[in-house]
Amino acid sequence: MYRTRTCGELRLTNVGERVTLAGWVQSVHNLGALTFVDLRDRYGITQLAFTEDASEELRQKAGKLGREYVLQATGVVAERYSKNKNIPTGEIEILVEELNILNESAIPPFTIEENSDGGDDLRMKYRYLDLRRPVVRQNLELRHKFAFEVRRYLDEQGFLEIETPVLVNSTPEGARDFVVPSRMNPGQFYALPQSPQTLKQLLMVAGMDRYFQIVKCFRDEDLRADRQPEFTQIDCEMSFVEQEDILQMFEGMSRHLFKVIKGIDIPALPRMTWADAMKNYGSDKPDTRFGMEFVELKNNQPDNASREIVESIFPDGFGVFDGAVYIGAICAEGQAVYTRKQIDQLTDFVKRPQIGAKGLVYARVEEDGNVKSSVDKFYTQETLQVLKQKMNAKPGDLILILSGDDAMKVRKQLCELRLEMGSRMGLRDKNKFSCLWVIDFPMYEWSDEEQRLMAMHHPFTSPKPEDIPLLDTDPASVRANAYDMVINGVEVGGGSIRIHDAKTQQKIFEILGFTPEQAQQKFGFLMNAFKFGAPPHGGLAYGLDRFVSLFAGLDSIRDCIAFPKNNSGRDVMLDAPGFLEQAQLDELNLQVVPQE
Amino acid sequence: MYRTRTCGELRLTNVGERVTLAGWVQSVHNLGALTFVDLRDRYGITQLAFTEDASEELRQKAGKLGREYVLQATGVVAERYSKNKNIPTGEIEILVEELNILNESAIPPFTIEENSDGGDDLRMKYRYLDLRRPVVRQNLELRHKFAFEVRRYLDEQGFLEIETPVLVNSTPEGARDFVVPSRMNPGQFYALPQSPQTLKQLLMVAGMDRYFQIVKCFRDEDLRADRQPEFTQIDCEMSFVEQEDILQMFEGMSRHLFKVIKGIDIPALPRMTWADAMKNYGSDKPDTRFGMEFVELKNNQPDNASREIVESIFPDGFGVFDGAVYIGAICAEGQAVYTRKQIDQLTDFVKRPQIGAKGLVYARVEEDGNVKSSVDKFYTQETLQVLKQKMNAKPGDLILILSGDDAMKVRKQLCELRLEMGSRMGLRDKNKFSCLWVIDFPMYEWSDEEQRLMAMHHPFTSPKPEDIPLLDTDPASVRANAYDMVINGVEVGGGSIRIHDAKTQQKIFEILGFTPEQAQQKFGFLMNAFKFGAPPHGGLAYGLDRFVSLFAGLDSIRDCIAFPKNNSGRDVMLDAPGFLEQAQLDELNLQVVPQE
Repeated sequence: MYRTRTCGELRLTNVGERVTLAGWVQSVHNLGALTFVDLRDRYGITQLAFTEDASEELRQKAGKLGREYVLQATGVVAERYSKNKNIPTGEIEILVEELNILNESAIPPFTIEENSDGGDDLRMKYRYLDLRRPVVRQNLELRHKFAFEVRRYLDEQGFLEIETPVLVNSTPEGARDFVVPSRMNPGQFYALPQSPQTLKQLLMVAGMDRYFQIVKCFRDEDLRADRQPEFTQIDCEMSFVEQEDILQMFEGMSRHLFKVIKGIDIPALPRMTWADAMKNYGSDKPDTRFGMEFVELKNNQPDNASREIVESIFPDGFGVFDGAVYIGAICAEGQAVYTRKQIDQLTDFVKRPQIGAKGLVYARVEEDGNVKSSVDKFYTQETLQVLKQKMNAKPGDLILILSGDDAMKVRKQLCELRLEMGSRMGLRDKNKFSCLWVIDFPMYEWSDEEQRLMAMHHPFTSPKPEDIPLLDTDPASVRANAYDMVINGVEVGGGSIRIHDAKTQQKIFEILGFTPEQAQQKFGFLMNAFKFGAPPHGGLAYGLDRFVSLFAGLDSIRDCIAFPKNNSGRDVMLDAPGFLEQAQLDELNLQVVPQE
Repeated sequence: MYRTRTCGELRLTNVGERVTLAGWVQSVHNLGALTFVDLRDRYGITQLAFTEDASEELRQKAGKLGREYVLQATGVVAERYSKNKNIPTGEIEILVEELNILNESAIPPFTIEENSDGGDDLRMKYRYLDLRRPVVRQNLELRHKFAFEVRRYLDEQGFLEIETPVLVNSTPEGARDFVVPSRMNPGQFYALPQSPQTLKQLLMVAGMDRYFQIVKCFRDEDLRADRQPEFTQIDCEMSFVEQEDILQMFEGMSRHLFKVIKGIDIPALPRMTWADAMKNYGSDKPDTRFGMEFVELKNNQPDNASREIVESIFPDGFGVFDGAVYIGAICAEGQAVYTRKQIDQLTDFVKRPQIGAKGLVYARVEEDGNVKSSVDKFYTQETLQVLKQKMNAKPGDLILILSGDDAMKVRKQLCELRLEMGSRMGLRDKNKFSCLWVIDFPMYEWSDEEQRLMAMHHPFTSPKPEDIPLLDTDPASVRANAYDMVINGVEVGGGSIRIHDAKTQQKIFEILGFTPEQAQQKFGFLMNAFKFGAPPHGGLAYGLDRFVSLFAGLDSIRDCIAFPKNNSGRDVMLDAPGFLEQAQLDELNLQVVPQE
């Protein structure tokens, strides 16, 4: 061992001990007669002192040190004259007696500090240097602890972690697979799994009863800020369970994680139906750290989210509202102070193409209770008072109204507006956690593109037993035994109870528009396994990267991944992917054919 | 929950309790008035009894049950009349009051029993049924526990489990990579990692100090019984350590695993040099469950394994021995009873092409101390007595002698013979464990094919400091800071201390025959990282599949893998790999070009 202690553990109680430390030079302060070196390792920073008492040779050596040199230093722990209260080791220093330069370092391309001067691209290219920054390292430490505690909890609950293969077969639906040419089976390809969904269901058929796996999954999708071509799931499945059992088990896991990792006791998770989530928040992953729920001021278009017609509170007069199918509003408490300019910013915000609203109507409740609005000329004060009452608004509040001819579209626009207002009002504190289950998802959603009902979750998701009669009469209204865990507006996990009987499965395939032959071709493999005694089963999967990011308060999942890829799917540090030599392609029976 | 109890937990103390169980029908015994059903789940088997007291409807239902039907049964726990002492639940049964057939089952293609009637291929195709067999399931349970205890130990020792990417770049040396075409980077390919070697070294450069990962690795090699295209490593690396620190740390881990999983206290691991292992066992992974070490009767060819010349104990006379460079022997205690036929079998064994010996000489020590040998006509009894003495042989022992013109080749043949004799003599008990470290591996081995020295471990392995002067004068004799952990003749893990300074690394590349330009091209990426302050570091990797197989007493690693591939690299259950549709190939800019 090159050291007797780490750079994070020495305190005043250790004064007088002779120790050896090893680590990297964080900084060198040369004060003429004195030289101080901050030595850093994974565990902390300790000050090395080269005083007037040190030998000339030692002081010369210290004089040559540069940033990120690797040192081994032996000396005696002493109380510091000038203490640094910001770090745990700040009360002591090492009076160095022996110094061994284990390795020199070129000048790093950016500063290795809490706030680095390196841009994203540079830090990605030299990720091994970026990882030396404590803020980045701490994310990986958190991730380690998180994964370990997941395993500890599930192990205690009798789950077996079972590794499923990475070289599998192509799956019939969903995103694109990455594929792997097989040399031993010329012209044939493996696929990398998008999730072990089929395999975990087979493990239930195999009688494994309680399975989990922390496992890499792969999707060849065009990437966004929060997507990676490879990502990690906490994948779980249980047999002989109903939805309630799954919710209880994994609520327990989440509470365990919050308790042991964040030291937070989270309350029992409230459950919100998908319909309520859509109606009140315009999202199936509502951020419930704050209220500001939607109020429907008009709704002529009953749907799965809201089955009742709401008569408009506005008499005819304003063409936009008159022609709207849906009018919805939120009440931003105390924001009547918003200036015209701020309102214009909000209007621009909702009119951005990604959101797509046509405009924004506002109404301020003044100190005297009167309502001043951008549509004053169309409505009487009485009507505006009805609005105020409906919104439960108080003097000083700001009411923001969106409308349109498609209720679901307006809800989604209003959702963005609500989140924007939440951010502006400081209601989305990263250190506050609001968790819930969203349940009762619809089985299907209509696809304009495919002109058919599509499975919202996946085609093995079980309908709610009480809704099974509706499969024949009104399939679009059938609810599934499907559930998502949502924290702070992020879907951290989701799953469903699976269908385990052939008859129901057949029915579901019919509704999805598959002939028995097509169903057999696409899903025959799993259906055949199910013939040999499939138990009732269900499960869920968490996105580990997202869950950890949330715990770490990160904006992107990249920051909790040791070696992430960029938006083009490249690892700029490894310079992957790259070109193959012709001989390698030949061996795989492949030829690269550039597209026009 | 479909059950209140599992099929493995009820005992006499539960008699009188009303319980609900769920599981699979293991067997049905219809005795006319009485029907008994063995119900199986992951936790055990419990007998369901349908007695004369049961309703007609219930008894009819029970009469229709088939093997592997999935049941939910409610009833009262009762003491059995005829107890089964072989299973923990054998003293009780459930007097069934309610029976719910959760799913029917087709007749399974093989029996789901301790010893199945299904052949390998059939059981691989229906792996989800094979996994229902307790003997197979227990291997996965052991694997889960093994991996969990590895994590617990390493977590306690301050290791961080850090996930490294699966989509990486192609590595310059070693076995073939599996590759993954990138759609977003046309014509370019990722590679799947053969091991995270480079990445874990970068994590040390990054200051992570103690890293581990239980991780899938991939090699596109032609497969043997004990190889899989994807396999799992316990991959570990530490900074600021010397070889001794690594040996101590991972000896501790192994002892922890033996203790908590097998309940065995293994003694401190002996250390054997590679030279001694080759000289005395003809293998760098000696099976030390038994002795029968080699005795050198002649050695004219000093090498890294044995540096001294041994004069032949045999005077000239027998041409084969006279011309041999090396003569080695083992003494099989008490085996003088071997018949001529048995000796012939052994001769055939060593003459098989995989072993390649030209013949086998034997000598029996008779009750009176005289030695009778197959080469009696060439040697006097005095010479044979010298042999007896040299072999430390007693009356009743059998001496087996091999010779040839290449010491290393003969040692390897003698190794096979020793293992064969060990097996025949019952000395290789699967329930006995003999662990050791093999250390001081040579840095290089000569490649006849490449006509140059090749790195025995990998080109970043550090030479022993005391051997560094030999790099210039006699590189083939330089020993490395490399080590393997060997248990019962199986290499379960191995690693090395890495080179961390540029000068030594440069020297090593020279000896391997790389010009500085070639070295830069092949390894520049890691060498560049090392410029920014690489700490001294080292590590090792265990083959999880092998290690678990050893604990489970399995002949093949396949039996501890949930969904293994066959010798053609196929998953016959998933029917992977498979052909892609043309559209998918087009999107990847690829064309399949069958070879002539």
